[in-house]
Amino acid sequence: MNKIEVGILGATGMVGQHFIKFLDGHPLFDLTWLGASERSAGKRYSDAAKWNLAGATPGRIASRKVEDAKPGNAPKLVFSAMDAGVATEIEQAFAQAGHVVVSNSRNHRMDQDVPLIVPEINADHLKLIPGQRKLRGWKGQIVTNPNCSTIVLTMALGPLKQFGITRMIVTTMQAVSGAGYPGVPSMDILGNVVPYIGGEEEKMQQETQKIMGDFAGDHITPLAAKVSAHCNRVAVVDGHTVTVSVEFATRPSEADLLNAFRSFTSVPQERNLPSAPKYPVQYMIENDRPQPRKDAEREHGMATFVGRLRPCPVFDWKFVALGHNTVRGAAGAAVLNAELMQSEGLLDS
Amino acid sequence: MNKIEVGILGATGMVGQHFIKFLDGHPLFDLTWLGASERSAGKRYSDAAKWNLAGATPGRIASRKVEDAKPGNAPKLVFSAMDAGVATEIEQAFAQAGHVVVSNSRNHRMDQDVPLIVPEINADHLKLIPGQRKLRGWKGQIVTNPNCSTIVLTMALGPLKQFGITRMIVTTMQAVSGAGYPGVPSMDILGNVVPYIGGEEEKMQQETQKIMGDFAGDHITPLAAKVSAHCNRVAVVDGHTVTVSVEFATRPSEADLLNAFRSFTSVPQERNLPSAPKYPVQYMIENDRPQPRKDAEREHGMATFVGRLRPCPVFDWKFVALGHNTVRGAAGAAVLNAELMQSEGLLDS
Amino acid sequence: MNKIEVGILGATGMVGQHFIKFLDGHPLFDLTWLGASERSAGKRYSDAAKWNLAGATPGRIASRKVEDAKPGNAPKLVFSAMDAGVATEIEQAFAQAGHVVVSNSRNHRMDQDVPLIVPEINADHLKLIPGQRKLRGWKGQIVTNPNCSTIVLTMALGPLKQFGITRMIVTTMQAVSGAGYPGVPSMDILGNVVPYIGGEEEKMQQETQKIMGDFAGDHITPLAAKVSAHCNRVAVVDGHTVTVSVEFATRPSEADLLNAFRSFTSVPQERNLPSAPKYPVQYMIENDRPQPRKDAEREHGMATFVGRLRPCPVFDWKFVALGHNTVRGAAGAAVLNAELMQSEGLLDS
Amino acid sequence: MNKIEVGILGATGMVGQHFIKFLDGHPLFDLTWLGASERSAGKRYSDAAKWNLAGATPGRIASRKVEDAKPGNAPKLVFSAMDAGVATEIEQAFAQAGHVVVSNSRNHRMDQDVPLIVPEINADHLKLIPGQRKLRGWKGQIVTNPNCSTIVLTMALGPLKQFGITRMIVTTMQAVSGAGYPGVPSMDILGNVVPYIGGEEEKMQQETQKIMGDFAGDHITPLAAKVSAHCNRVAVVDGHTVTVSVEFATRPSEADLLNAFRSFTSVPQERNLPSAPKYPVQYMIENDRPQPRKDAEREHGMATFVGRLRPCPVFDWKFVALGHNTVRGAAGAAVLNAELMQSEGLLDS
Repeated sequence: MNKIEVGILGATGMVGQHFIKFLDGHPLFDLTWLGASERSAGKRYSDAAKWNLAGATPGRIASRKVEDAKPGNAPKLVFSAMDAGVATEIEQAFAQAGHVVVSNSRNHRMDQDVPLIVPEINADHLKLIPGQRKLRGWKGQIVTNPNCSTIVLTMALGPLKQFGITRMIVTTMQAVSGAGYPGVPSMDILGNVVPYIGGEEEKMQQETQKIMGDFAGDHITPLAAKVSAHCNRVAVVDGHTVTVSVEFATRPSEADLLNAFRSFTSVPQERNLPSAPKYPVQYMIENDRPQPRKDAEREHGMATFVGRLRPCPVFDWKFVALGHNTVRGAAGAAVLNAELMQSEGLLDS
Repeated sequence: MNKIEVGILGATGMVGQHFIKFLDGHPLFDLTWLGASERSAGKRYSDAAKWNLAGATPGRIASRKVEDAKPGNAPKLVFSAMDAGVATEIEQAFAQAGHVVVSNSRNHRMDQDVPLIVPEINADHLKLIPGQRKLRGWKGQIVTNPNCSTIVLTMALGPLKQFGITRMIVTTMQAVSGAGYPGVPSMDILGNVVPYIGGEEEKMQQETQKIMGDFAGDHITPLAAKVSAHCNRVAVVDGHTVTVSVEFATRPSEADLLNAFRSFTSVPQERNLPSAPKYPVQYMIENDRPQPRKDAEREHGMATFVGRLRPCPVFDWKFVALGHNTVRGAAGAAVLNAELMQSEGLLDS
Repeated sequence: MNKIEVGILGATGMVGQHFIKFLDGHPLFDLTWLGASERSAGKRYSDAAKWNLAGATPGRIASRKVEDAKPGNAPKLVFSAMDAGVATEIEQAFAQAGHVVVSNSRNHRMDQDVPLIVPEINADHLKLIPGQRKLRGWKGQIVTNPNCSTIVLTMALGPLKQFGITRMIVTTMQAVSGAGYPGVPSMDILGNVVPYIGGEEEKMQQETQKIMGDFAGDHITPLAAKVSAHCNRVAVVDGHTVTVSVEFATRPSEADLLNAFRSFTSVPQERNLPSAPKYPVQYMIENDRPQPRKDAEREHGMATFVGRLRPCPVFDWKFVALGHNTVRGAAGAAVLNAELMQSEGLLDS
Repeated sequence: MNKIEVGILGATGMVGQHFIKFLDGHPLFDLTWLGASERSAGKRYSDAAKWNLAGATPGRIASRKVEDAKPGNAPKLVFSAMDAGVATEIEQAFAQAGHVVVSNSRNHRMDQDVPLIVPEINADHLKLIPGQRKLRGWKGQIVTNPNCSTIVLTMALGPLKQFGITRMIVTTMQAVSGAGYPGVPSMDILGNVVPYIGGEEEKMQQETQKIMGDFAGDHITPLAAKVSAHCNRVAVVDGHTVTVSVEFATRPSEADLLNAFRSFTSVPQERNLPSAPKYPVQYMIENDRPQPRKDAEREHGMATFVGRLRPCPVFDWKFVALGHNTVRGAAGAAVLNAELMQSEGLLDS
């Protein structure tokens, strides 16, 4: 099979670098186009971007020329790693011009006609696309993935949706890589906790309800459950940890929940999508796990790890969840969305 | 006025060192007796203990001889910094022999007849003492302070008790100093979060209910509110951060709560106890504060800092609280308890 | 005695904040003027600057109006915390207008006619001032203090100069606070070492030779010793650690060196300057000290700590030195310089 | 080809775990025997050892029974990860009984008849073995690898030996994983530098001279170069960084040195040993690299990274080197030694 050519909008930033790393050697997609701002356009990638990730820039990419982030000669499928400040217009221009924009940016996530996808949870929300194209008069489309902390939470909640979630209170301990580069100053986080991440709590609360909601023709009916989030930054490089207290319509047993976590598979696993983890939610029995530095990178960073399931004196159950914020929470999330779309024929001309 | 002579049980351990540091230059108490295990007894303090705190051992103490931790020639008032493994017997032996044992150890905290005191919150629980002495046939007494994370939480809740707390869910991000020395291995916490601290959640849940409860003759009727705690260790040296979602019998307004935090003073402030912070709860208006590295040491580590009061989509209100775990959460807590007892005449012969 | 009014050039930046903190409650100087860029001028200080240090902005300062950084209504004595990009012109304008500019900026340090002062080491280099004023036609003057890592090194070398230093190789492990705010991105330094600090090695090598050199009429004859520096950034908040291997003209004994460190006092101690540490170099006998987190803040951050003196298989001796980079290495250095100048009558009208 | 069965002495400790991880899936060696102390013998591995590394215990190993660390039913080839306190006797007992002991322990490294091998540097030192067997009357043999920091240094020096090294002064910034588990208390290293590692400087100085020395029949004539080491612990998880100032008999040019680093290959590369990195020394041109968190794990942790080559004002040249202390500096070092021995027929019966 010929690989599908793909491009990246915002290829020089930190999220763009994560896309480059994640797509390196991808079995389905061939990264052939790097789009960035005018300032970078025309330069070799290694001249336009300071590589901030571990290791070196993949060789093929280092010497590739950066293009102006405008539709035209870009491949049909483009991943968007644009900053929120510029993503709205550029993503829309690409969708209008017929591109499939698979975006990690927050700008369109909560638009009524835009799918906000976690493939294990709500693959059926892709059904919003025909309405989106009609409504906006687009030849292309925009599909988004959620905020990094929302993905960790919804992955852990996916197996539990069947029990009727009614309320939850969560607290995050988020890695600095989530803030990009230069991002969090070391003076703010060394030996410290910052109990605030701008806009994050609102995103977690709203996005979770949309993702866990139901397709209703031209929109998603959000999950009725109430969600309250406390978002904190901690001195961790990669991996967001989330404590969760959750209430159900009817209290399931411990065995019900453990079985739900352990047996959970969904569309990506059934279709054997290349980036799908075999077991998307992995329950750890050790009493002090999961931990970001020890677990986030397992399963290529695509699984969510859950542990410490125990009764909650206030709600029904409490537990802790962990996921890799720049892999499953960003670049890997978007690529898995694209793999899902490919499996549905949504990338065909 | 002559200072009151005091001793420390367990003077060579890390909590013992915090007591030594906190008592250095104390206006009311004169540290004249250092008790430790047989292994240390007879040695100079600086030979028996490796000083693990910042700075150097206070000069007067370095050369003082360590005594065997047995009643006899110890001063009437002894602070207990004993490990839980040995505290029960030794503290009881001292109380039996007529000593006033002001303990930071967990062993007797939940005993029905033992006061568990945070002076700003439940000074009246000292009324348990006559019953304790009668019940146990002691000439002395044992008074305890809570676990470090419980103190931070109860200090922040103190001003809110008037509104009728019914439920709360809290998540802690706790400093490594809380685990003593050598305590948390660096391999476990560098760039990491450990979502488990043995026994800590149970302590926070139970101790909070006892402290916020009411004196009922020979016991305390615990606060009826349900409490659920998620306790985590983070890469912070000093200062425990707690996120709090709280439900009230009747929802107070934001202004009610801010006013309650800001105007809160209690017995230690009224009596002008030497270690009492002028304002025990300090509300910070910056949107990203309080932070452990920047705020825990303010007010000599004796105040609790609160911030980010905002509506909780699940309960009524949510906020973040911070306190110094080895000062207000340990040595400073016990010393303030002793100051309170002195002000009530409980140290008189 | 009336206090001397002083101002700060660059009051809103991180070094400016260190000056504000260090001058708070100073017995000799009264901070009455805060100069900053046009963008900040006219605002209240707390509106113009985000306070990045531990604790809160000193109350008197928070509400003070920020002035445009131009001579005119500023006090005669101004401390400069300007960024190197703008310091040259502004400092010169103030000196020309008759101000005494005591600068922490690097711009004029290596100018032949500008004193680069560490008061314990080369107080006599102030004799350059008359020549400077004559040469430049200034009514005022510029006096500088060295780079933060240079100060730690030269303080430790001061007691050893008498033995005839011929060569030294040093490696620094420098705190992130030395890079200002936002400074070092957390993504670069968490769990990491960055073996490069732009321009730092050259500064350490040249400044050390100038400071340890001799006044020669209109210039300083640099110390003939060769100096090689390896400068590294580590995950430390405050405190630069330096390993030193040093060769002497004639090898002194261990006792000679220990005695030199321990007995070292100089002009600031003789004159009892307010910010001078009683013992500027403190030798620690513990085999694993000094350490930045445990020792840098002792003696109000103004002393240098030395330890681990032992034979060097290549040169004569090796040891480790530590100092507080933002106190003794920046704001405190400049203030001590001003105290020295005051004691010499250089601030008189 | 049938794989060669191997065992581990001290399999439950941290170094033992690194051996297990490194040997997982090894193409030549099959780990079939886990030896540990009596206390662990008879238990399943996962019951006897708390897994401290990232990820989970390799599945085959978790359920394997731990054996008593005595010769007998162990395979011929055993890797030793024993603590220094017990290694001497046990390793000798195994060598006497005919085992090939490839040891990471320090006990026999400096014995005159024991090879201390870094395969790229001194593969010919294996010629000591016949003499060792004769001298000790052993049917087996002991071969050792150096201390972790020594390996990083000697790997970087290997390409430079040809230029006649005469003197060097080095400073290390070492990861906490080098101290095992629990190892360095977090209270000692968070936001800190500890300027002391017991015995480390002596090991670096002596081992470097032996490794860089020449085989002389029944012993090694050490390199005549003088070496001075300053060893420090920093808040890094994996990866030792070393700054190096080096003097040569005749000063080589920058091009000579760069070429030497870049073209360096040796016996392991020529023989294509399975764990040998293709380029054992990799020179990085970025001005702020190598860095432990970003580079140590590249090339499966088996390469040494060098950067910042520049003139040294005191000696001839200075640079920085980095290597992975628990891979190339411990388990990987021993396994590569065994691969080298296998390629020489030293494992044949």
